[in-house]
Amino acid sequence: MSLDFETIYASNKFANPRLQPPRRAKYDFAVAYADPNSIPNAEILMCLEEALLDYGSELAIYTHTQGNTNLREYLVNKLSHNRDIQVTPDEIILGNGSAEIIDMVCDILLDPHDIVLTDQWVYGGTLKTLRKKMTDIRGVESDEEGMVPELLEQSIKKIIKEGKRPKLLYLIPTFQNPQGFTITSARREKILEITNKYNIPILEDDCYADNRYDGTQVTSFFNLDAEDSVIYVGSFSKIIGPGMALGYMTAPSSVLDMIMNVKRGRVSDFTAMTVEKYANRFLDEHILKINHIQKKRRDSMLSALGENFGTSARWSNPDGGLYIWLELPQGCDVQKLVEKSLNQIDVGFHPGTDYSPDPTKGHNFMRLCYGYNDTEEISTGISKLAEFLSKEEII
Amino acid sequence: MSLDFETIYASNKFANPRLQPPRRAKYDFAVAYADPNSIPNAEILMCLEEALLDYGSELAIYTHTQGNTNLREYLVNKLSHNRDIQVTPDEIILGNGSAEIIDMVCDILLDPHDIVLTDQWVYGGTLKTLRKKMTDIRGVESDEEGMVPELLEQSIKKIIKEGKRPKLLYLIPTFQNPQGFTITSARREKILEITNKYNIPILEDDCYADNRYDGTQVTSFFNLDAEDSVIYVGSFSKIIGPGMALGYMTAPSSVLDMIMNVKRGRVSDFTAMTVEKYANRFLDEHILKINHIQKKRRDSMLSALGENFGTSARWSNPDGGLYIWLELPQGCDVQKLVEKSLNQIDVGFHPGTDYSPDPTKGHNFMRLCYGYNDTEEISTGISKLAEFLSKEEII
Repeated sequence: MSLDFETIYASNKFANPRLQPPRRAKYDFAVAYADPNSIPNAEILMCLEEALLDYGSELAIYTHTQGNTNLREYLVNKLSHNRDIQVTPDEIILGNGSAEIIDMVCDILLDPHDIVLTDQWVYGGTLKTLRKKMTDIRGVESDEEGMVPELLEQSIKKIIKEGKRPKLLYLIPTFQNPQGFTITSARREKILEITNKYNIPILEDDCYADNRYDGTQVTSFFNLDAEDSVIYVGSFSKIIGPGMALGYMTAPSSVLDMIMNVKRGRVSDFTAMTVEKYANRFLDEHILKINHIQKKRRDSMLSALGENFGTSARWSNPDGGLYIWLELPQGCDVQKLVEKSLNQIDVGFHPGTDYSPDPTKGHNFMRLCYGYNDTEEISTGISKLAEFLSKEEII
Repeated sequence: MSLDFETIYASNKFANPRLQPPRRAKYDFAVAYADPNSIPNAEILMCLEEALLDYGSELAIYTHTQGNTNLREYLVNKLSHNRDIQVTPDEIILGNGSAEIIDMVCDILLDPHDIVLTDQWVYGGTLKTLRKKMTDIRGVESDEEGMVPELLEQSIKKIIKEGKRPKLLYLIPTFQNPQGFTITSARREKILEITNKYNIPILEDDCYADNRYDGTQVTSFFNLDAEDSVIYVGSFSKIIGPGMALGYMTAPSSVLDMIMNVKRGRVSDFTAMTVEKYANRFLDEHILKINHIQKKRRDSMLSALGENFGTSARWSNPDGGLYIWLELPQGCDVQKLVEKSLNQIDVGFHPGTDYSPDPTKGHNFMRLCYGYNDTEEISTGISKLAEFLSKEEII
């Protein structure tokens, strides 16, 4: 006889069956991976050596509960220089990638059935987190300048009319995932005016801000906000690699105190001490290098789309980040072609449905990442994809 | 004006004010740290080099959601050899130290006010986790063979009489923290008989099992259990260092699926790939080495206690682990002497109250760790402590 755990589990908890990760395609436009050759092995090794020499014996000690102090000091400077954010090391908490942080923020703010505002198309990882917390997710439409303030306010008013209140606005303001837009500075101010009017905090997911290839940087919501209403999250995943699983946050002090009560375990000090050494010596230079690579890959994907899709589809033209958002003719369904594409042409993509708060929408969209494959592979993969979609009578 | 987050926070969430970690004492018998000189810097560096050569480009990729696959394969062998546990890599989930895992297990099993059974004196980290989940913690008394089965059953019957049910039994069966005992095999079977009779799962926290200095290993609850009722957690913190922040768990398959739904973010693959290389090549040998060091430190602390405390106190005599549990005359209160001891004699200890499910108990106990200081420092520190307690008229 086995113990029946079903009668024991806490309320509002669900199973998430352990699955093998899907096979990766040769032309992998699905998951947001960086160039595997960009991982700076030699420099990382050198930095670990230096870190072990300086702090090796500290591995015998429990690190600060908010994470490696030297790395938090580095981030104080980085946030000040790059995002116009002035905080102290005490106001930074490290996490296992931005994923842990976004989950913790949702945890302290959201009960089941609470309402969260997001973009109409938005990062699937955050959607999963919001869904497992059983929240009510409302998408707001955007144009090429980002979320449309008037539509945001309309949506808020509708929710208030329902006798409810939106508890959070989640935004990826710079190089939005998957749509690629960057919210302009004027529009950020407009959005803040609205959220502050209705007392809605913003979770600013800024993990692509360093990956700019064209145009000029737009300052952070955190900086523009005068009412201590923004929770800011960043990550090293898109500037070093997801294998470091290292993210960070800052927020009003009281929010950080709440976070520390739901935080579980500590971030690897072994990883953090290496990243700190690396970041101080090499990161700026490394970002220039990977952005140069990614710019060429974006351009390669854009021109391959132009050549192969012509006027049969529309796509975004991002100034940075890792994604192109492809809109196919209305009525088609690319979700059911994911497996077939993988098996027949070895091309991976994510269907638009993965990015839709409304599960009935997004079938005629796909997200294409250009980070992993080189320019030639991108060119070949996109041409295979167009041919495949044409055979499927989609374009 | 600032946004009032107080009106937004989710239910049952509380602040945990960010504090600077307390100053560490010269004679640091407080936190469970390992010998700082035991950190094998040269081997770790060598192993990272090897790992980067073999898998460096995988840092560009999101690792398996359950954690590094090679490390999970290593753990399959380790658990089989050392703990008589037969599982597959799919049945292992990595975590940020055992702390993340214990928190996740509590998360899937416990609602506020649920009843959890623990030892009468038990690891303060787990108590904190249980308290922040607002559970009702009931301590059960033990003797030198561990939790007394008859008292466990009495406690369960009392809870049932209250119209409730215990949802979980938390145990550190081998080298219990802080009491140091190891539950005998016969008693493990007796305890399992009772928990299985009342359908209570066991969380087996086994993070000291490798740190045995005398006697013979006792098999795991997970192995003895015939009813799939045991959730097992282990860690590298006490055999490499807490700076790796690397723990692992196995459990019945349905429990693992529930865990994956509350798991946040991923464990650093950078750390995991290094630890895997290190563990395969060096860990067994390293464990022998640190156990040799820690045995001498334990002996040093035991003889210093004998010399300085004589019959004015009682203390445990553990076959392994890192702790001695010191019982002082009834009626005294060492909790209020923590600061004074740190400032006057530079000796750190944890008061027994930190280990008591019942906050009114434990004032005449202290936990002493012998992992960090060398034998001479231990001897000096214990003599200073005895002198200090004598001046305070406690002994």
